Amino acid sequence: METPGSTEASPSDVASVLLDIDHVGIAVTDLEAAVEEYRAALGAEPVHREVVREQGVEEVLLRAGTSYIQLVTPLGPNTPVGKFLERRGEGVHHVGYRVAEVGPVLERLRAMGVPLVDQAPRPGSWGTTVAFVHPRGFRGVLVELVQAGPLPKPG
Amino acid sequence: METPGSTEASPSDVASVLLDIDHVGIAVTDLEAAVEEYRAALGAEPVHREVVREQGVEEVLLRAGTSYIQLVTPLGPNTPVGKFLERRGEGVHHVGYRVAEVGPVLERLRAMGVPLVDQAPRPGSWGTTVAFVHPRGFRGVLVELVQAGPLPKPG
Repeated sequence: METPGSTEASPSDVASVLLDIDHVGIAVTDLEAAVEEYRAALGAEPVHREVVREQGVEEVLLRAGTSYIQLVTPLGPNTPVGKFLERRGEGVHHVGYRVAEVGPVLERLRAMGVPLVDQAPRPGSWGTTVAFVHPRGFRGVLVELVQAGPLPKPG
Repeated sequence: METPGSTEASPSDVASVLLDIDHVGIAVTDLEAAVEEYRAALGAEPVHREVVREQGVEEVLLRAGTSYIQLVTPLGPNTPVGKFLERRGEGVHHVGYRVAEVGPVLERLRAMGVPLVDQAPRPGSWGTTVAFVHPRGFRGVLVELVQAGPLPKPG
């Protein structure tokens, strides 16, 4: 049973939900070339690389101050990012917002009627906890909520 | 006359080019509704609003840590953002990267053969200096270089 209002944050809670833009996730066809291009053009240094099998991607994070540029390439055509590339071509795939705790934010969005992709928080890359929220809730932008994990993210 | 190499930064210069993600620019059809949605969902507080006639948009900046969520709506259908909305619908329109100085970065990108939208830095909103770079240089992402202006951006 839902208790209306129980997941609604007070204004001061709401104000503290969003800590930073964690990353901009960019879908690319050639990960190595993309990393070199971003490094050469902007001086963005790669600081992490990981294959995330559950999401069907390999990703590289490049540092951008307190945020990251996340370059992601699909492990195959029948993955969400593979289908995105076929449909839209390279470009911004999602935006990751850093929050203190994914669980309560997800509950609040659910209570607000925002359609969720992930019904519960789950492990993301680099020790994070994440949940994706449907673009319908954010004006066409696929949103990833990101909670920093036990691994220190330098920066 | 171009002097080859003169605009090429040394590795240490390159490493210092990118200061932060300044903002994610999101094209929306209904600015007021979008601001309320982002505020309610993420607790992102609007901190600046401006009509930027040269770009044909009205924008609202919402604070996201050291970055901003920039919601932009077109002033008419025959504007870049108006055409974007007609072609793609609501979603991420561009990514703004904060740099110390737009001019030298623009020169370096030009020397690298990256296609530019703006050939020279120009005034942006809120006292910034900006230049747009073509998506072909950044894997399908329209990039805005942003140099903080004399107006203090709180945060």
